[in-house]
Amino acid sequence: MAYDFKMERRVAFAETDMAGILHFSNYFCYMEEIEHAFFRSLGLDVHVGDEEGILGWARGEASCRFMKPLTKDDVVDMHLLVKSRGRRSITYEVIFRKNREEVARGNVTAVCVAKNPEGDGLQAVAIPEDVDAQIEVAPGDLF
Amino acid sequence: MAYDFKMERRVAFAETDMAGILHFSNYFCYMEEIEHAFFRSLGLDVHVGDEEGILGWARGEASCRFMKPLTKDDVVDMHLLVKSRGRRSITYEVIFRKNREEVARGNVTAVCVAKNPEGDGLQAVAIPEDVDAQIEVAPGDLF
Amino acid sequence: MAYDFKMERRVAFAETDMAGILHFSNYFCYMEEIEHAFFRSLGLDVHVGDEEGILGWARGEASCRFMKPLTKDDVVDMHLLVKSRGRRSITYEVIFRKNREEVARGNVTAVCVAKNPEGDGLQAVAIPEDVDAQIEVAPGDLF
Amino acid sequence: MAYDFKMERRVAFAETDMAGILHFSNYFCYMEEIEHAFFRSLGLDVHVGDEEGILGWARGEASCRFMKPLTKDDVVDMHLLVKSRGRRSITYEVIFRKNREEVARGNVTAVCVAKNPEGDGLQAVAIPEDVDAQIEVAPGDLF
Repeated sequence: MAYDFKMERRVAFAETDMAGILHFSNYFCYMEEIEHAFFRSLGLDVHVGDEEGILGWARGEASCRFMKPLTKDDVVDMHLLVKSRGRRSITYEVIFRKNREEVARGNVTAVCVAKNPEGDGLQAVAIPEDVDAQIEVAPGDLF
Repeated sequence: MAYDFKMERRVAFAETDMAGILHFSNYFCYMEEIEHAFFRSLGLDVHVGDEEGILGWARGEASCRFMKPLTKDDVVDMHLLVKSRGRRSITYEVIFRKNREEVARGNVTAVCVAKNPEGDGLQAVAIPEDVDAQIEVAPGDLF
Repeated sequence: MAYDFKMERRVAFAETDMAGILHFSNYFCYMEEIEHAFFRSLGLDVHVGDEEGILGWARGEASCRFMKPLTKDDVVDMHLLVKSRGRRSITYEVIFRKNREEVARGNVTAVCVAKNPEGDGLQAVAIPEDVDAQIEVAPGDLF
Repeated sequence: MAYDFKMERRVAFAETDMAGILHFSNYFCYMEEIEHAFFRSLGLDVHVGDEEGILGWARGEASCRFMKPLTKDDVVDMHLLVKSRGRRSITYEVIFRKNREEVARGNVTAVCVAKNPEGDGLQAVAIPEDVDAQIEVAPGDLF
């Protein structure tokens, strides 16, 4: 059973904005990157093919608090923690650190979804068994 | 005094992902776009030049709930509301609608910042007077 | 028959980089946006559904020359011209102007593709008739 | 003296589009990433601070040919080669490979620029000596 994952990420020039800092929308992409790396580390795929009719993990909610800016070439240490689990969703918390200091902290709720058979919409479905069997909530003192 | 702003935005192909929908990080860019359009509509600039030592409006916090997906060519109606105001920050709520139905709702807290004189950091400063004189909190029944 | 299209685009804050200018990768997104707007103006869709087995228009080649930088809030006038046509591809030229002065010029070759039945790849296919019937090469003096 | 650099890059979910493949604008970001990694490997910085009045390396021209699509989780091997050098610019070629097969090839001309003292523009300037002393054109048989 796994409940956390760590990964480094270097801020790219293209991710900065004219204020000279990492644009805030990219923290959400970083959170998705570490979520996917977490899945890969468990031999899981976040995006199951169309054959099974499952699209993957839609975002139900996402948030982030920004304490200190990051800029080009900064190496940010990300720590993903499984915060809570539902039957159809998982909520992650991601702590961003630079030189051991926390610079941002975000949450994202990923909802397992399938394509709605009668249209464009997405439909929440139960988390697949192989995911269910491997992911658990992290101990509270890690947050 | 102004407390809200409306704007349409068409979802671009490049903003979609392989699940066929608008990637969630873009909702945060859209929120920033409407915030800037709101400022422009008042004759204000969100990004004051380096001369004054003011960098602009950093994001202190941002969040979004996603109810229904959007895809390429969808025209989304955005409604920005001033949710609350501090001495150094403004919190906006943005309601995303498609065909009058709410599809997402986000919040962003913009903090007025200046470059920290002794380093890389940013420092929260009081909202400039011209902004202060023009922006007020929206009535509760609009939310 | 149509051979050109014009459209305005305002540079967003999120599209700038720490050099204070529109990041060069975005010119390619802008070219795609005007190509899609051109198709929409003709009642065509660039992305035909999976039902027909056609994925849409893949990029075979893209290039851009950058003469003068653009920055936040600049309104750029784009002019798309059909430069050449093959049986399976269309090459567009896009001229970027600010205050009537040319600031950049790009080319993109869009190849009509279908999903390769036996795998992940894409396969070039003949341009659909409805597109073929409406798009022609622009006169040389417009370039 | 250095004339080439290699680096791996994994395609992120957020970089794909609704056609299920890496959006073409991202190849240009990847080219910039490897150019910056090349500079870092030589102890150089692509973005020199405002103090010296030098902004960095503006893109004069960029192009890319796309042979085979890439998708999420693909690991692309990039090989950057110094293609030519001028007094004020360097042109790079980047070869993208997946499982040893070439899937794309791009060029970018980076022009050394300083902020124009009398305005918004950028002005091409001579390549700094520390860069000049370390970078040379790659042998022709590597292309």
